[in-house]
Amino acid sequence: MTDTPRYYAAIDLGSNSFHMIIAQEQDGSLTVIDRVKEMVQIARGISSDGDLAEDAKERALDCLACFRERLAEFPASSVRAVGTKALRSADNSEFLKIAQDALGHPIETVSGYEEARLVYQGVSHSIPQQQGQTLVVDIGGGSTEFIIGHHQTPLLLESLSLGCVTFSQRHFAEGCSTKAMNNAYLAACAELEVISSNYRQCGWDICFGASGTVKAVANYIDGNNAYIDRERLETLFKDVGRNGINATGELAKLRREVLPAGIAILMAIFDQLQIDSMHVSDAALKEGLIYDIVGRLSERDIRDQTISQMTKQYRVDLAQAERISAFSQALLRELPLEEEYHKLIRPAQLLHWAAMVHEIGLTIAHNDYHLHGHYLIRHSDMAGFSRLEQHWIAQLLRLQRKKLPLTLADNLPKNLSACLLCLRLAILLHRKRQDLTLDVHLQREGDTIKLWVENLLDHPLTTKNLKQEQEQLAALGLRLELTPDKP
Amino acid sequence: MTDTPRYYAAIDLGSNSFHMIIAQEQDGSLTVIDRVKEMVQIARGISSDGDLAEDAKERALDCLACFRERLAEFPASSVRAVGTKALRSADNSEFLKIAQDALGHPIETVSGYEEARLVYQGVSHSIPQQQGQTLVVDIGGGSTEFIIGHHQTPLLLESLSLGCVTFSQRHFAEGCSTKAMNNAYLAACAELEVISSNYRQCGWDICFGASGTVKAVANYIDGNNAYIDRERLETLFKDVGRNGINATGELAKLRREVLPAGIAILMAIFDQLQIDSMHVSDAALKEGLIYDIVGRLSERDIRDQTISQMTKQYRVDLAQAERISAFSQALLRELPLEEEYHKLIRPAQLLHWAAMVHEIGLTIAHNDYHLHGHYLIRHSDMAGFSRLEQHWIAQLLRLQRKKLPLTLADNLPKNLSACLLCLRLAILLHRKRQDLTLDVHLQREGDTIKLWVENLLDHPLTTKNLKQEQEQLAALGLRLELTPDKP
Repeated sequence: MTDTPRYYAAIDLGSNSFHMIIAQEQDGSLTVIDRVKEMVQIARGISSDGDLAEDAKERALDCLACFRERLAEFPASSVRAVGTKALRSADNSEFLKIAQDALGHPIETVSGYEEARLVYQGVSHSIPQQQGQTLVVDIGGGSTEFIIGHHQTPLLLESLSLGCVTFSQRHFAEGCSTKAMNNAYLAACAELEVISSNYRQCGWDICFGASGTVKAVANYIDGNNAYIDRERLETLFKDVGRNGINATGELAKLRREVLPAGIAILMAIFDQLQIDSMHVSDAALKEGLIYDIVGRLSERDIRDQTISQMTKQYRVDLAQAERISAFSQALLRELPLEEEYHKLIRPAQLLHWAAMVHEIGLTIAHNDYHLHGHYLIRHSDMAGFSRLEQHWIAQLLRLQRKKLPLTLADNLPKNLSACLLCLRLAILLHRKRQDLTLDVHLQREGDTIKLWVENLLDHPLTTKNLKQEQEQLAALGLRLELTPDKP
Repeated sequence: MTDTPRYYAAIDLGSNSFHMIIAQEQDGSLTVIDRVKEMVQIARGISSDGDLAEDAKERALDCLACFRERLAEFPASSVRAVGTKALRSADNSEFLKIAQDALGHPIETVSGYEEARLVYQGVSHSIPQQQGQTLVVDIGGGSTEFIIGHHQTPLLLESLSLGCVTFSQRHFAEGCSTKAMNNAYLAACAELEVISSNYRQCGWDICFGASGTVKAVANYIDGNNAYIDRERLETLFKDVGRNGINATGELAKLRREVLPAGIAILMAIFDQLQIDSMHVSDAALKEGLIYDIVGRLSERDIRDQTISQMTKQYRVDLAQAERISAFSQALLRELPLEEEYHKLIRPAQLLHWAAMVHEIGLTIAHNDYHLHGHYLIRHSDMAGFSRLEQHWIAQLLRLQRKKLPLTLADNLPKNLSACLLCLRLAILLHRKRQDLTLDVHLQREGDTIKLWVENLLDHPLTTKNLKQEQEQLAALGLRLELTPDKP
């Protein structure tokens, strides 16, 4: 007997192209059953102040509407759409909203680090298991990712500001020439110089290139689509400088505008990393994303691993962190929650992650450790997390203690505000860093939160602290009422 | 034959009183030969917006002028003056300058953490070596320090916002009463709650109290000046609430205004930390400072240990850090330096420290790691460093790479600007993370820095990087000239 097949969709909104793949899982094996790709080139439409051009927006929205049609029957948890460099850097919160509506699913923006992790996950699952280490290079429209890994584990992850679309604008505005090729090459070398010695030291046994640029070059060289060797790349580099792109293959035609920049970047990568040959990988970020969706749905959530690693790195008092996590989640269960737009983010999960790392700032200093924790979460490379998730966890850390800003209620989604209330109360009631022996319950009635603490009258210090907390919670638009009656 | 005696002076500019001690070192032993103390109470003169009141400033300057007279013959390196809580929190950069002129020596402000470290250093050197762990409590005018240590090594260090002057203003403005005592006591308990369980868990075998408050209480209780037990303290606490201070001893008279707050704080400390008895220590911060001066002059500089610990904690690539340190210091030796006001800070030393930790930000993320390094140095508790030193190291980290702010030259002391130049060039020339095989020399002529790099023409990437650097250094008011002639 076979399982009912399950379907997953991964969407990669890159700077040069938008991709969607649909995969089917049946009897434990995952097969890609559909691929859609549009060369949207939104990076080309970004002005110097970061805005997307109108025609780029239009191309993007048209493409998303097509994707939407294909996704009509998919449950939210089976779809993930991720925006990379161009959507990160464009001042785009307005556009993101419109794009989400066009797609009918939330769009997460991810950091370069997370992009690199997903690329490696996609490539490493798609190639035969290697004996040694693998280098993966993904040249995108706005950034290039470099990963060295062993089996499914990435060891080095970097994302550099090298992109075939941005380099075309910067170095080939006046057309293709030997000078333009050399300038682009040198600029790419300068970016690469920072990582090259680390990468060479770490080493690899086989090298894969993902992305359209790599495919187009392999295709252009001899139509094989599978392999690029140094000698032919050098010849191509010089030839394109002299004669421009003499497009024959279909891929090269499609990419005619961005291919010279792509070749210059690739040449710089070959030289700086001392690569002799590169295999072409068909898989990339979107395939990696599929594996993440499957992982999350089957309790192997990479985000939990990341949080656990951080608690180790920053030597968190685990007993206290788990105490705060369990207690605050118990409080949260007593509050009604709302259906919100970002349905992928579950408040209880967010609260758990925040509770586990709420004290990481202590490694820096006791003073203002909530601010240090906020800084660390905001800026760390956190595998598996979208930028929005990181932003919210960072917010919870910053607001976990001390005074709350007066205008907070307007800036915090309702569910996050409920998480914050539970986190603050849990921390306040566990200052002694011991399990609480008192019974505590919450009840919400409109904007009033009724709090009952067993034998509160016998605990003047707790009473004093809770009374101070009443003042603070006004900033959340909440009225905390200490009630003598168990709800 | 005996050594020529050497003299050291340590000045503690506290919130309640200013202290100076002078110690003599001869044949390896250190003896305090003079003590001066003034109850300046500058914390009492701080308004809610952080300004010092005029009469408080006057009291402070008079006192500093007296100290100056005593210090007439002392070399700069044998004197250290440290300002704690009140000078930290008062918006005081103007006043600090005036005060430094009055004293004739630089005044460093130190963090609460550093204050605690110095207190422990003073106390632990002044008491007979203990078998187990020692708790030291120093109740000051604006903050109270809590340290648990073993022999000369502090294990836990905290500084809380509990001060006998600030608590007097806050809770005893309408005089002394049972209610005022209870309020001050509860407020102190709330502050203490955060550290109490950690401290109790760590434990101690003997407990010492430093500071005037502790001495005054011991004196008030039975004139012994040596010991406070819980029973008598409880009686005193209740009695003072009912009848106020009935001053008999001289110490108690002197402190009449701040003693009730001090007693309430001490009672809270006894209760929260479950202390039964406290010994009085004569030594405190200023004695600790003397040991720091001696250490610095004899190559046992605690700051070097701190930097070394940070390189471990943040897993710095030591080979690269030492490479940058050695190379940048070699460049600095080719530049003329100026005599600056902060003569205690040697540029080469500062540059060395900055070079050793310049990559600590990488633990957070590769992206913007110079900003993360800046954040870490700015906010970390760094034993032995003044706030100004930390500030400058943090600045060097922030400015080590990428664009320099245009108005930088106006905001950076000249010597720091020279350090920055050398640090940036060293980092730029070592991007490959290998020892440089090229010979490099600098020469300064006015605002022009002539840079000669061996065989530069054979290194197009280095040339490109140095040309970009020329643009950046304009922000420092410097013209970097790449010269083909070896200077």
